[in-house]
Amino acid sequence: MPYTIGYDFGSESGRAVLVDVADGREVASAVHPYKHGVIDQQLPDGTRLGHDWALQHPADYLEVLEVTTKAILAQSRIPADDIVGIGTDFTACTVLPVKADGTPLCLTDKWKGTPHAWIKLWKHHAAQAWADRLNELAERRKEPWLSTYGGKISSEWLFPKVAQVAEEAPDVYDAADKFIEAADWIVWQLTGVETRNACTAGYKAIWDADSGYPTRDFCAAYHPKLANLIDKLGPPRPLGEKAGELTPAMAAKLGLKAGTAVAIGNVDAHVSVPACGTTDNGVFVAIMGTSCCDIICGPEKKVVPGMCGVVKDGVVPGSYGYEAGQSGFGDHFAWLSRFLGKADPGHAALEAGAEQLGPGGSGLLAVDWWNGNRSVLVDADLTGVLVGMNLQTTPIEVYRALIESLAFGLRMIIDTFSQNGVKIERIIACGGMPEKNRLFMQVIADVTGRTIQIARSAQAPAVGSAIFGAVAASKRKGGYDTVSEAAKAMGGIKELSFTPNPSNRSVYNQLYTEYRTLHDFFGRTVPVMKRLKHIRAKAAAGGVSTETIERRAHK
Amino acid sequence: MPYTIGYDFGSESGRAVLVDVADGREVASAVHPYKHGVIDQQLPDGTRLGHDWALQHPADYLEVLEVTTKAILAQSRIPADDIVGIGTDFTACTVLPVKADGTPLCLTDKWKGTPHAWIKLWKHHAAQAWADRLNELAERRKEPWLSTYGGKISSEWLFPKVAQVAEEAPDVYDAADKFIEAADWIVWQLTGVETRNACTAGYKAIWDADSGYPTRDFCAAYHPKLANLIDKLGPPRPLGEKAGELTPAMAAKLGLKAGTAVAIGNVDAHVSVPACGTTDNGVFVAIMGTSCCDIICGPEKKVVPGMCGVVKDGVVPGSYGYEAGQSGFGDHFAWLSRFLGKADPGHAALEAGAEQLGPGGSGLLAVDWWNGNRSVLVDADLTGVLVGMNLQTTPIEVYRALIESLAFGLRMIIDTFSQNGVKIERIIACGGMPEKNRLFMQVIADVTGRTIQIARSAQAPAVGSAIFGAVAASKRKGGYDTVSEAAKAMGGIKELSFTPNPSNRSVYNQLYTEYRTLHDFFGRTVPVMKRLKHIRAKAAAGGVSTETIERRAHK
Repeated sequence: MPYTIGYDFGSESGRAVLVDVADGREVASAVHPYKHGVIDQQLPDGTRLGHDWALQHPADYLEVLEVTTKAILAQSRIPADDIVGIGTDFTACTVLPVKADGTPLCLTDKWKGTPHAWIKLWKHHAAQAWADRLNELAERRKEPWLSTYGGKISSEWLFPKVAQVAEEAPDVYDAADKFIEAADWIVWQLTGVETRNACTAGYKAIWDADSGYPTRDFCAAYHPKLANLIDKLGPPRPLGEKAGELTPAMAAKLGLKAGTAVAIGNVDAHVSVPACGTTDNGVFVAIMGTSCCDIICGPEKKVVPGMCGVVKDGVVPGSYGYEAGQSGFGDHFAWLSRFLGKADPGHAALEAGAEQLGPGGSGLLAVDWWNGNRSVLVDADLTGVLVGMNLQTTPIEVYRALIESLAFGLRMIIDTFSQNGVKIERIIACGGMPEKNRLFMQVIADVTGRTIQIARSAQAPAVGSAIFGAVAASKRKGGYDTVSEAAKAMGGIKELSFTPNPSNRSVYNQLYTEYRTLHDFFGRTVPVMKRLKHIRAKAAAGGVSTETIERRAHK
Repeated sequence: MPYTIGYDFGSESGRAVLVDVADGREVASAVHPYKHGVIDQQLPDGTRLGHDWALQHPADYLEVLEVTTKAILAQSRIPADDIVGIGTDFTACTVLPVKADGTPLCLTDKWKGTPHAWIKLWKHHAAQAWADRLNELAERRKEPWLSTYGGKISSEWLFPKVAQVAEEAPDVYDAADKFIEAADWIVWQLTGVETRNACTAGYKAIWDADSGYPTRDFCAAYHPKLANLIDKLGPPRPLGEKAGELTPAMAAKLGLKAGTAVAIGNVDAHVSVPACGTTDNGVFVAIMGTSCCDIICGPEKKVVPGMCGVVKDGVVPGSYGYEAGQSGFGDHFAWLSRFLGKADPGHAALEAGAEQLGPGGSGLLAVDWWNGNRSVLVDADLTGVLVGMNLQTTPIEVYRALIESLAFGLRMIIDTFSQNGVKIERIIACGGMPEKNRLFMQVIADVTGRTIQIARSAQAPAVGSAIFGAVAASKRKGGYDTVSEAAKAMGGIKELSFTPNPSNRSVYNQLYTEYRTLHDFFGRTVPVMKRLKHIRAKAAAGGVSTETIERRAHK
């Protein structure tokens, strides 16, 4: 009876799930928080960090491996001999400088007090100026890859992060033999072999299967020190391949068998696709959490305005994987809850009240940009809108408007893919939200006019990693030879699905027309939101004197 | 030592204030609620009312007269002989059908069970269809008076209300010898003489000093029964005149002296102007409460887009009185408080927090149409907007945005008057808000770039009525011969005023540009708000079926 383990490394903790290779049954799972969490104030030695920094500690990842593996082995009593493969997924771009043997610079005495020697977590946002410079340069030079990323590289990605190191800590840059995604570093620790995966390289490091990384010429123009950056990266390998085998040392540490197959690294969102039971083209998988990440595969490369990226073999081997998303999703509801404070009636009451209202029954129309817009406008400076407020407007009405607005934002992405030649056959929702937010899922079905299926596992990324672990093992060793076969056997969807209600759909079609009007007005035509941010920034900078109240004598 | 009494009849209660004629000192005051309040569900005999109805009981007004007069006499110990005049003001248009002797139909056995026989309060909104028909007809016939009212007659005014009676209760219409404003009916009760006042006639009954009421031809075209409507009204008299003298019967009832001078009736907002100490042209008086009513006088008749009306002698004799306003004002704050429920931090905390933010420091821009827009767009179907929402947006930021937005709405009115030839020399705020909302007043000063003065009395309407009572008495009897003299002596402003801060003003000029962009987009260009109301109305009418969640079997 073969089993595999999937490890899912998140922002605050890591998770392991032990999965039956035959049918994907989750036999055991364990979560362990990172001891150092997100390091955003000071290094362990007390060195202060700047604004918008976000680092991590590599030892935390290793501790997760050890603690969770022992926990699932103990829970399941499955013998290590039956565990044939391991897969991993990570947040990205989460990148660190290492020596040639994979030692993180931050774990050496020389560099442990230098912030730039540490792991930069995906949400390290202090490299925004370097993203701006990169976009400006790429546009000016008409770099062919820019359109692949919706016309904009994010400050969260590898190039801006490494450029910040080169500029602010040139000695760290020089001391780093490699810069490597944590997704690949953890595989290196497991196998003793350095590999790179096509997913993080493609979506976060401007790499393309045909043309490779940006040219050395471009890198040097971006920052002189980066002329040798490509030497510090490495050639990515397709997803689904075996990276190597568990080293005896690591096997002993985890209680697993040396030689166990380890899959090439992967990203948490992208790895969720096979967990839904399919790797077919045209399956739109929406990974719903605080934000929403959308993945779809297609047979050819299309330029779709406002997507995050399109990468050959980036999700499953043999197809083009497209990524898009909404930078704010469930966190809109968290905002409403915070706004209401002790008056928050709770999710169940909000959902029940909102359901009573029916489509358009709030009288409100929201634009879902509380955390900016990732697709299709690719503009972090956009902000949220509420229209239709009146003296009777209630929190329940705002809640309903937020739900509808998020569904409109999702439809905008779906329509944009469809209109640009990326065919969508099915929609599958996964992540923590779908099971807990049934009204929301129904509204999405009604707004998009499509049936919404739900991933079977609530921990889809970890199951996805276990699937890749089974492929790394190969059929001969009890796994599968292709991601597609493994996905069919081990992934799947729930019996629950949400089908569009035709009369609701017609109301939403009217509302969506209004949403598009506001979307284009605020997002494309009139930069009111940017000007508000600018005015606010000036106010915060103290450009505004205190109020004055004068008293005057009147007869 | 002469004194006068001012009576202010509001929507829920009536107030009396006893004022020293020499200097306007408020010697005593009393408030008494209407026993029947706003009758919007059923008549006293249980007869059910329709949606949007709002009636009142005439006996409640008489009870207010008796109870409050006795209270102020008892408080002040002023002898009735020293009280030389009485003035009154009322909500308008608040209109009732009466017999030739002034008996309200609703107080007769025959009609007491008929809703249309009762007093229609200003906020009776069930005649909207008749307002629509009137506007359509007047526009088609190019009636010259339409522009005097900003191009639109409100459903709150006399013609739509009476047309509703004529259509739905033709026998009530026929049985009514007169239709009369409550403002004039109360004066009739006090004096035994039927009079009409130029203020309610001019602002609420389409009457003009030069051309009179609409033509009989127009009335007949509006509704055949209304061919004789003008016979059921009466010729208005200018404000400041004496309507008559207190009858012996009423004097005995109130404890006052028979023969006491009684002023022509008046409207609560308009009567507040002389309470501010001036009747000069160019003084913009903003009466701030749940809504905001703006009054300004000028030497000539100008057509100003979006004003509520311009009436010769409508505020003070000898000038043209202009009215404009914001249909929602302080009730925006009441909404926020309701929305927050038990999380509402209270006015003081919101104001202190909002002051800390500084101009534009909320990052938000609101459009102040939670209760529609009265001026300059004259559109009750407009609704409120919040732009700039993000995941950190707080109630304090929304509070600040509401304050700024209301100030922008006020500036829009002020600018429109100025640009259309109505000169504004001073701005005076009165009503309950100015003293309690100092930050708000400062923001208004900064946004408009003008000093905001504050009326001396917090009960300006009642003091204004007392001023008109003094003019009705005349100088010979211890009062004054002109409203202007009386206003100078008895009205006034506080020592407190708010002067614009130049650096704040420059921030607000930028924000106001953005406000105007949204104002014109939503108010003039794209009717998103009307379409949202339409969609919501259809949803409320049950056009939307319940959500459906289907369960399906998947392999």
